[in-house]
Amino acid sequence: MKHTLSVLVENKPGVLTRIAGLFARRGYNISSLAVGETDDPDVSRMTIVVSGDEVVIEQVCKQLNKLVDVIKLTDITDKEFIGREMIFIKVNCPDAKARMEIMQFVDIFRARVVDIGKDTMIIEATGEAAKIDAIEDTLRPFGIRDFVRTGQIAMVRGAKNPKHPKKSN
Amino acid sequence: MKHTLSVLVENKPGVLTRIAGLFARRGYNISSLAVGETDDPDVSRMTIVVSGDEVVIEQVCKQLNKLVDVIKLTDITDKEFIGREMIFIKVNCPDAKARMEIMQFVDIFRARVVDIGKDTMIIEATGEAAKIDAIEDTLRPFGIRDFVRTGQIAMVRGAKNPKHPKKSN
Repeated sequence: MKHTLSVLVENKPGVLTRIAGLFARRGYNISSLAVGETDDPDVSRMTIVVSGDEVVIEQVCKQLNKLVDVIKLTDITDKEFIGREMIFIKVNCPDAKARMEIMQFVDIFRARVVDIGKDTMIIEATGEAAKIDAIEDTLRPFGIRDFVRTGQIAMVRGAKNPKHPKKSN
Repeated sequence: MKHTLSVLVENKPGVLTRIAGLFARRGYNISSLAVGETDDPDVSRMTIVVSGDEVVIEQVCKQLNKLVDVIKLTDITDKEFIGREMIFIKVNCPDAKARMEIMQFVDIFRARVVDIGKDTMIIEATGEAAKIDAIEDTLRPFGIRDFVRTGQIAMVRGAKNPKHPKKSN
């Protein structure tokens, strides 16, 4: 089962290594990871998507919580949350006909064209993993030249998230 | 100076730990990181943004290239590239007047409302770091409850990017 962990950490060197190491030592592969600064420059937030056995994930979470660098960890898998990622896809676009078709798909998926080259286009899209896969499948016939995706980020719906609760120790 | 590295790696446990470790051992803090699968499930792409001294970054790149897990590393800092990230911002929205104002800002920034709660809204936006900062500043007066950002992803403009060039060894 896929778990989505939202982790507030100290923004300093070595934190990522320690956290990634906890997963790696168990042979767990992080399938997606997004790390970015929060509005407090001393604090970063990691959104980790990892698939694995319930019990072991729980163990890893407990150990993550013990790291001094971890301010707060939440397994939001069972909560109502919005989870999305962003992608860039560079597709072949040799002529006006292909361009028109691609633009139509871009419209349908509420995506955006962010660059046009001599015979390529770069498209930006956001959405859940399933939508991203659908976009990829739709554009594949044109020939995908390049493909980059952010990891998933997630936010719990409604108003319950407190802002940056500092660990009380 | 900020460097943007685009790294194709084997998609397996431990790779992230080794790569993050290379930076951490030098005291270099990765300021943003995005890891996602590519259209080849055995290959992931990391986009790493790191600030630091030119010479040392070059050394780190050389060492990264030596890791067997690294298929291809490109420092795209000096190339013409599109670099963007995505954010979720949860803001306070106590009444209709605030909602109207927020919706206007959303329009101006070509962002999207992705959730409305009893007295909050979640907004999704994509763009360069400067734009993201502007959005954050604009929404701050309403009260930011929560803030998540993906790391930056980047793609070189035009048609030169070869697709998944396997390391020739």
